[in-house]
Amino acid sequence: MTSDRRFPVRLDLEKGAVDMSHGSGGRAMAQLIGELFQRYLDHELLILGNDQALFTPPPGRMVMSTDGHVISPLFFPGGDIGSLAVHGTINDVAMSGARPLYLAAGFILEEGFPLGDLARIVASMARAANAAGVPVVTGDTKVVERGKGDGVFITTTGIGVVPEGILISGDRAEPGDVILVSGSMGDHGVAILSKRENLGFETEIRSDSAALHELVATMIAAVPDIHCLRDPTRGGLATTLNELAHQSGVGMQIREDAIPVRAEVAAACELLGLDPLYVANEGKLVAVCPRDQAERLVETMHGHALGAESAIIGEVVEDPHRFVQMETGFGGSRIVDWLAGEQLPRIC
Amino acid sequence: MTSDRRFPVRLDLEKGAVDMSHGSGGRAMAQLIGELFQRYLDHELLILGNDQALFTPPPGRMVMSTDGHVISPLFFPGGDIGSLAVHGTINDVAMSGARPLYLAAGFILEEGFPLGDLARIVASMARAANAAGVPVVTGDTKVVERGKGDGVFITTTGIGVVPEGILISGDRAEPGDVILVSGSMGDHGVAILSKRENLGFETEIRSDSAALHELVATMIAAVPDIHCLRDPTRGGLATTLNELAHQSGVGMQIREDAIPVRAEVAAACELLGLDPLYVANEGKLVAVCPRDQAERLVETMHGHALGAESAIIGEVVEDPHRFVQMETGFGGSRIVDWLAGEQLPRIC
Repeated sequence: MTSDRRFPVRLDLEKGAVDMSHGSGGRAMAQLIGELFQRYLDHELLILGNDQALFTPPPGRMVMSTDGHVISPLFFPGGDIGSLAVHGTINDVAMSGARPLYLAAGFILEEGFPLGDLARIVASMARAANAAGVPVVTGDTKVVERGKGDGVFITTTGIGVVPEGILISGDRAEPGDVILVSGSMGDHGVAILSKRENLGFETEIRSDSAALHELVATMIAAVPDIHCLRDPTRGGLATTLNELAHQSGVGMQIREDAIPVRAEVAAACELLGLDPLYVANEGKLVAVCPRDQAERLVETMHGHALGAESAIIGEVVEDPHRFVQMETGFGGSRIVDWLAGEQLPRIC
Repeated sequence: MTSDRRFPVRLDLEKGAVDMSHGSGGRAMAQLIGELFQRYLDHELLILGNDQALFTPPPGRMVMSTDGHVISPLFFPGGDIGSLAVHGTINDVAMSGARPLYLAAGFILEEGFPLGDLARIVASMARAANAAGVPVVTGDTKVVERGKGDGVFITTTGIGVVPEGILISGDRAEPGDVILVSGSMGDHGVAILSKRENLGFETEIRSDSAALHELVATMIAAVPDIHCLRDPTRGGLATTLNELAHQSGVGMQIREDAIPVRAEVAAACELLGLDPLYVANEGKLVAVCPRDQAERLVETMHGHALGAESAIIGEVVEDPHRFVQMETGFGGSRIVDWLAGEQLPRIC
């Protein structure tokens, strides 16, 4: 940072707080952008200071996805709202098979929010974006009065390019297809709830928050004809499977025994009265692919750190009712319905 | 809407309200999306129900821009948060010279917010997007508890394509260039403040909220070498000129008499103790172009409804201090500084 005549006194990132002037569009906002946002998110397009980022994408099909983040608490085992906002949107872009290119970030700050916490969040965002190779290239900051927000909300939007020949969509599941998950279910939701409720489990449960685009890239390289990909976030695996069944006009048959759930997550869910199939994940995906490609796909996924615990959990069936049914551990069968009501508010 | 076994009872758009389950990811959220968002924003990419929109843009340079909207009140003379969220982001994209292609919209709703108001906002958004020819193709909805938000916040993100040969950026102003504005200053901010404070002026002052991309398209067709374009929103004309002077490393000299301000806006500003040069606009732009192109540019702008009151207001000068100076109506000169503090909170 060079000295700037506009800002004789630097922002106090230790004891300072957001005030309404930081959303004014004027001098205070310019200082917040310069000394906090641009300091961490130091991409040349952002530094340039225009209201939009300019770039030349490779030719071909693109995707765009947006996701608001209102998670509470803001900091949790395994991440914070900053890293989550990067991972969440990268994953939504990647679930089309796309290679994510760029992110935009819109912040809504509450008056009085500590600048030190904001700096910690933006630094975490920058680390997550750098690690993923998907920079934040443009942004926006608004401030609302105390009691009209909740610390910080972050809406991230991502764009990406879809490799030629790839067509992944929620309406492509066909009877006979196989259903896979990339690892254990429920880690994120249980980590958040434990933190929120101050539950001191013996083993700390950490969020699985992670960027899945590289896992997806290896998957589509091995099996270009993947039919569906989706990350089971809010509403968990159960809701995601119901969405896919609904979009594709099919039923699904899964096996409870085949679904990976960590012992400590299962125990916490039992204690809390939660079903892990409805608990949010932030670093897992569901894949649907043709039966004759499933073994190849699961082996490929096993070769990637974020897919090491991947498993085939069931198959797509014909069903005009579009039900998701599960063979339970006891050999019975039950319908796994859409999440009704709200299991875990503000989980992402 | 066809009947859907998942939702035996339709959303009550007359008396219903947002509750936490509408952010769950489950059944209630699917219903809100189906019966409210998709009903109005009926683009095929949105209806498909994937977490991302897929499209093939024309080849070449692109821009991306994002903007959070936290305006209070939500409904005001000349618009509402829905139309504003569409216009605001279209304008940020267009200020690069780009043709806007698509929008993404992220909603953060407060528990208890009337569904009827939400429907009115989303319908307004749809009308604005349709009128502009820039559809909302993907979105997201989150819900926060009562007292943790303020009705509705909308973050819109836009992408667009930049025509070949166009290079518009805040760092391109050069000494000798001419500065233009597309119309009267301060209408939006005064309209919002009048509504907020329940000031009953004789003449209702309406926001100038409008999408400027078609005006921009005619401008760059006539004068491809426009150097800078920016919409003087938060912080008003004064702040925008200071931003451009700072980015380009130049000074600016403007003439007070040349800056269009409506008589009723000037009167309201005097009453409220505001300087119209610092009041937000949502349907105006500032342009900087080479001197020998300025007449052609202003004539072109006069030919478009949104530029009918365009005016040349000053010129770019050499100045290592990067000051914006104004020749006042009395023949004196004063420095027009960055906005300090917060003149009008939550104006957009």
